[in-house]
Amino acid sequence: MLVVDGLGGMPHLETGKSELETARLPNLDGLAGESACGLTDPVMPGVTPGSGPGHMSLFGYDPVKYLMGRGVLEGLGIDVELAEGDVAARGNFCTLDSSGLVVDRRAGRIPTAESTPLVELLNGIEAPGVGLSVYPVRDHRFVLVLKGDGLGDRVTETDPQDVGVAPQEATSQSKDSKKTAGAVTIFVSAARDLLGPRETANMVLLRGFSRLPRLPDFGAAYRLNAAAVATYPMYGGLAKLVGMKVLATGQKFDDELDTLETHFAEHDFFFLHYKSADTAGEDGDFDAKVARLQELDARIPRLVALGADVLVVAGDHSTPAVMGAHSWHPVPLMVRSGLTRGEGLAGFSERHFAAGSLGRIPATSVMTLAMAHAGKLAKFGP
Amino acid sequence: MLVVDGLGGMPHLETGKSELETARLPNLDGLAGESACGLTDPVMPGVTPGSGPGHMSLFGYDPVKYLMGRGVLEGLGIDVELAEGDVAARGNFCTLDSSGLVVDRRAGRIPTAESTPLVELLNGIEAPGVGLSVYPVRDHRFVLVLKGDGLGDRVTETDPQDVGVAPQEATSQSKDSKKTAGAVTIFVSAARDLLGPRETANMVLLRGFSRLPRLPDFGAAYRLNAAAVATYPMYGGLAKLVGMKVLATGQKFDDELDTLETHFAEHDFFFLHYKSADTAGEDGDFDAKVARLQELDARIPRLVALGADVLVVAGDHSTPAVMGAHSWHPVPLMVRSGLTRGEGLAGFSERHFAAGSLGRIPATSVMTLAMAHAGKLAKFGP
Repeated sequence: MLVVDGLGGMPHLETGKSELETARLPNLDGLAGESACGLTDPVMPGVTPGSGPGHMSLFGYDPVKYLMGRGVLEGLGIDVELAEGDVAARGNFCTLDSSGLVVDRRAGRIPTAESTPLVELLNGIEAPGVGLSVYPVRDHRFVLVLKGDGLGDRVTETDPQDVGVAPQEATSQSKDSKKTAGAVTIFVSAARDLLGPRETANMVLLRGFSRLPRLPDFGAAYRLNAAAVATYPMYGGLAKLVGMKVLATGQKFDDELDTLETHFAEHDFFFLHYKSADTAGEDGDFDAKVARLQELDARIPRLVALGADVLVVAGDHSTPAVMGAHSWHPVPLMVRSGLTRGEGLAGFSERHFAAGSLGRIPATSVMTLAMAHAGKLAKFGP
Repeated sequence: MLVVDGLGGMPHLETGKSELETARLPNLDGLAGESACGLTDPVMPGVTPGSGPGHMSLFGYDPVKYLMGRGVLEGLGIDVELAEGDVAARGNFCTLDSSGLVVDRRAGRIPTAESTPLVELLNGIEAPGVGLSVYPVRDHRFVLVLKGDGLGDRVTETDPQDVGVAPQEATSQSKDSKKTAGAVTIFVSAARDLLGPRETANMVLLRGFSRLPRLPDFGAAYRLNAAAVATYPMYGGLAKLVGMKVLATGQKFDDELDTLETHFAEHDFFFLHYKSADTAGEDGDFDAKVARLQELDARIPRLVALGADVLVVAGDHSTPAVMGAHSWHPVPLMVRSGLTRGEGLAGFSERHFAAGSLGRIPATSVMTLAMAHAGKLAKFGP
């Protein structure tokens, strides 16, 4: 299963053609003609998914039921080991004025080199009965992890999401989150003491308190020996959470393909992640997204040459360059196997796939479809 | 949101073209090309919706969970004020023979002029602890409303749905409906005494005992200041039930457009109802339905000129003229905004929309989609 991050797009305002329609994609176009095609809804029509729900859905998990919090996801993104019961929060260094009001929620996006020693400073903070760890992410961002017994995650954000106001207090929203809120309050107060003397980046803001959801095991559910190949830690992190083996790989998609080829005989399911289409879309760079799609297309023959029984090309969500953001638009889906009808679509695009035989389906159905095409599902009922 | 009542149709047996395909619809066809299009299922595939479920679904309410009873709907149709806890039933005048068997369930569809004084007669009936009110509808039809504490609505119909048999007794099907059944029995017995001496229309039949469902507020749920414009009381009544403001309007669709234009700046959501397509379909008059659709099309530029951020054209159900009734066929849906992909469909019809990018979606998703296109939804999950 090749997941092209941010696969779906929208027409360029001048040409009327989407990124997929603009790109020269001879290999994907050719595959589309001999495959079953359609569109997926990652969550539901009209709902724009974050990366977490977008992937959970493709793995077959109800993305509403198994919602991953922002803190957990940020932790996965920097490869923090999270255990069941840990609470993670996303943190920002921010700047307060002399009266304690936020003047910059991101402290001028201070560079990682400047924030790393501040993170180390925060790492010295202790709270009774709760283990506190702070991890640098990038620029002004960090992750706070709380470890200990009885830590709920229903704690309000300290980030007021606005300037000209003071940071908010962390308050518990459930009985089992009181201990968490207490530890967070100690952490925030100590951070204020440690950072207070500074001109900028003199305070922290926390949000997205969350715990790992309890996830059924992917391999057990589908009876697959599954592996993930992804350059970005967050996607590997998600795969690991559902029980996939994350294969070490390099920084480029070519490295991912090398890894895939090396390990191809060892697993019967691979999740292969292609990130750069989404990045270009998020940057609002139409031409870059077109280029990234073309670079992907050039590598499709390598993928096909592996001879998988089933090849799924899917996306976790749409990222139209004209919007410069994730969107709710349905995402192209292609399933290729010896059992696809080969509907003869002329190209790999949103418009072609709207008329595909798969129609518009929830992304949570993709794994079931793939399993069926692999001959791995028995008849339902007598 | 323009709701074209009974929008979907079926091919004419001779031409093979549906009402939408037969009609000249230059404006709707043009909009379709630049919009996102698809088909909706109001309830589920194969289920023919009544007007209540068809609209509830478009408003985003699960039409099964929030099922409106026949009595309530009939009451809304004649603008009866129903409060929570009231029970409404649909009534017919019928004709019994000398041995008390039904010979005509509709009493020869006696004209309103003849039934109105009979309704007044029934209005004099009293039952201890329960307020009884009877309202004329049209011809042989009326509505009975019961007011009081502890009135359940699980009461069996007195209408045997057949001739040659006697009216049935109203019996309670739940503990909390005993009081209702008792009052209904008193009402029916008194009605028999009052009407019995007549040759025809000498008895009443009751069915569809129902209460208002508890409905979440539309405006609160979507954070919209919503208004409804509809010539028929029932549609305004439904809109009012979900909390929309019902704007006074005249008897024609042009009056509705006048009202819409006058109040356009005052609300951020409008439900605009176009009734006559359904009426023609129900009459089995293919040409009339084509004409009604063309009349609508001619008014589309007025609607577009208002410059709404999002224009939804939807239907509450299909009413194919060849069937002369509501049907289960999926209903065309068009969503137009600056963020639609503009899939370039060549026309506004069932067949074109089957290949649209929206695919076939539950009608309960329409509001979510519209909200997304209006930029009113945040991303789901990190």
